[in-house]
Amino acid sequence: MHGIEKLAAYFQKFPGIGPRQAKRFVYFLLRQEPRTLEDMAKLIETLRNKTAECITCHRFYEADGYGASCDICTSPNRDTSLLMIVEKDVDLEAIERSGTYDGLYFVLGGTVPLMEISDAAPLRLDELVKRVQTMAPGLKEVIIATGAHPEGEATADHVRGLLSPIAEKNPFPITLLGRGLSTGSELEYSDRETIRNALQNRR
Amino acid sequence: MHGIEKLAAYFQKFPGIGPRQAKRFVYFLLRQEPRTLEDMAKLIETLRNKTAECITCHRFYEADGYGASCDICTSPNRDTSLLMIVEKDVDLEAIERSGTYDGLYFVLGGTVPLMEISDAAPLRLDELVKRVQTMAPGLKEVIIATGAHPEGEATADHVRGLLSPIAEKNPFPITLLGRGLSTGSELEYSDRETIRNALQNRR
Amino acid sequence: MHGIEKLAAYFQKFPGIGPRQAKRFVYFLLRQEPRTLEDMAKLIETLRNKTAECITCHRFYEADGYGASCDICTSPNRDTSLLMIVEKDVDLEAIERSGTYDGLYFVLGGTVPLMEISDAAPLRLDELVKRVQTMAPGLKEVIIATGAHPEGEATADHVRGLLSPIAEKNPFPITLLGRGLSTGSELEYSDRETIRNALQNRR
Amino acid sequence: MHGIEKLAAYFQKFPGIGPRQAKRFVYFLLRQEPRTLEDMAKLIETLRNKTAECITCHRFYEADGYGASCDICTSPNRDTSLLMIVEKDVDLEAIERSGTYDGLYFVLGGTVPLMEISDAAPLRLDELVKRVQTMAPGLKEVIIATGAHPEGEATADHVRGLLSPIAEKNPFPITLLGRGLSTGSELEYSDRETIRNALQNRR
Repeated sequence: MHGIEKLAAYFQKFPGIGPRQAKRFVYFLLRQEPRTLEDMAKLIETLRNKTAECITCHRFYEADGYGASCDICTSPNRDTSLLMIVEKDVDLEAIERSGTYDGLYFVLGGTVPLMEISDAAPLRLDELVKRVQTMAPGLKEVIIATGAHPEGEATADHVRGLLSPIAEKNPFPITLLGRGLSTGSELEYSDRETIRNALQNRR
Repeated sequence: MHGIEKLAAYFQKFPGIGPRQAKRFVYFLLRQEPRTLEDMAKLIETLRNKTAECITCHRFYEADGYGASCDICTSPNRDTSLLMIVEKDVDLEAIERSGTYDGLYFVLGGTVPLMEISDAAPLRLDELVKRVQTMAPGLKEVIIATGAHPEGEATADHVRGLLSPIAEKNPFPITLLGRGLSTGSELEYSDRETIRNALQNRR
Repeated sequence: MHGIEKLAAYFQKFPGIGPRQAKRFVYFLLRQEPRTLEDMAKLIETLRNKTAECITCHRFYEADGYGASCDICTSPNRDTSLLMIVEKDVDLEAIERSGTYDGLYFVLGGTVPLMEISDAAPLRLDELVKRVQTMAPGLKEVIIATGAHPEGEATADHVRGLLSPIAEKNPFPITLLGRGLSTGSELEYSDRETIRNALQNRR
Repeated sequence: MHGIEKLAAYFQKFPGIGPRQAKRFVYFLLRQEPRTLEDMAKLIETLRNKTAECITCHRFYEADGYGASCDICTSPNRDTSLLMIVEKDVDLEAIERSGTYDGLYFVLGGTVPLMEISDAAPLRLDELVKRVQTMAPGLKEVIIATGAHPEGEATADHVRGLLSPIAEKNPFPITLLGRGLSTGSELEYSDRETIRNALQNRR
């Protein structure tokens, strides 16, 4: 297998990319300047050297000069009495983009599988418990920000169960993100659960 | 224009139906039993005779024997201290289907247009004010259940403005359905407004 | 079950219509003028009285005054030496709309099932053979215009087998619609079969 | 801008990739083994060194050891009396995948713009004319294999005009890929042009 095929095979493993689009990516690259290709190659090659998983919140961040904890975890401008637990890096980014939260984060690494799946991504549940124990004396709230789907709800239940003993001792509340009508929702197309939540959480 | 074409022309006016599907509807009917066609024709012909707009909540309901107010408005099992204002009949049906509300309704007939549109459907704003004035002495809450989109929000603002003077005198709260993550939402794909609401309404 | 529900149940049986859209059709009708509903009901009720299956080509047509053969079969302007065999009424309409054919038609009523299906729609194969026998002395060509999918190809093979003995005696050619690139096709996305056909049929 | 953002910005320029998917690509890469990233980076960096545009047919091919003409152009097994003109590399690949053609190719580089567009990709029209002049003494056919859309048809017309003087002198026919029903086509949904072509090209 030659270079074009080999590179297309890599692109085909990218999330959501089929064989045709993978091939189109290669032809797209073939039309770029050599300098662009070199730059891109260098970025990919050094991606894991210049990026580190934060030892505190476990998000990926640019590693140079920050040491072992990321820029959010070490920022003097964040409210260290708030901890938000998210499933994935991209969820954390969506919260940051919204500009509505200034506390700290913990990236769980996924959701608790609904069925016993042996090769599921291991969640950082032990690390979470340790992190919350460390923060507990100063904590005012832990926000579980998992998705509003069965896996997310099961994960929230599981995490709440793990953290409840710590929360009762200190004490601090464990909250969930509000459920209700999301932007763009029409009542007509909303399911029973959303309507129930929208009614319960009316204000 | 003959029968097939004429009937296809009617079906083409149905919401979401193009010329091809309209034609397919006619050929579908041509393959049905004569008895089925007669039954369907009778249902359409008598639709407005056997159906009435409730003079109290303005929803369409089966008219026989109920008089001028619908079965929900006259039911002894509904909580008459709660009034929910919805845009359309199908929204009311979605709430009923959810089995999470036992108060009364008012069908507004649509949303306040965001821009001045001369031929917009006239909303029942005067009727709403009168209805709320009549119910006011016994009212414990008015719930504005418009959609979570710009038109719905503008309508909610407008309705709140109209009802506030009555609400202050009696008094009763005017609430909105809760905003937040609707079922199935992933944080990753949620917009800024939904994240803000989900954070504010956490519990 | 009342009128609204009953009518929605009928609409739900229409091809491609789910429960929500069926309901929306009923509310759409509730907003129409009584005269419109009466007119529509009459069209549906008389659909099968004012429409007949042509005894010659088996298409549905407006029945009044034409007798037992349809306006295409009895037109003096059609070329009676050409017979095109189509699967369904809507295929015949697509050909007529294209304005590129002035011969006669025969509506087969569907495709030969690829697997043995006991309740498949019965095709008019006997009627087709009789029709072709009647037309044979004057026939210059029989065009099999089934779809370019496995069922259509299998049907074309089957029909060709049935008609070959007649075609050899008289004789007249039995043709298939041309295969190749259809309008809008990109080579990039074309399957092997289409490319093979497009190459073979190049001109 | 750091590595993650920079790499996401590159992916965002890939055909059909938006900002969210670009980000997901980066997080996908962050979860890969360092060896995989190195391999991929090397493939991208050397893509243009190990790949060359064939000086004869202008397709991209693996360059090592083949010299300046590609493996198709120099193969002793290809029929050098047939030349097929395609728009893009991926079209050539689709033809090769179909296994139905064993002649030579010429990659035009795109389509003739329907409107005057100053920065349209320059087509290899001069190169095409020269190539056909060189091949002319031995040519039995030139096949124009552009797409069945307005740009493709306009390009075919333009190319035919350019090559006609050479074709008349030698002489060899200039053909187009066949038009008709492509695999999967239903007559019901076919446009006028496709039906006309399918009728004209029946056989």
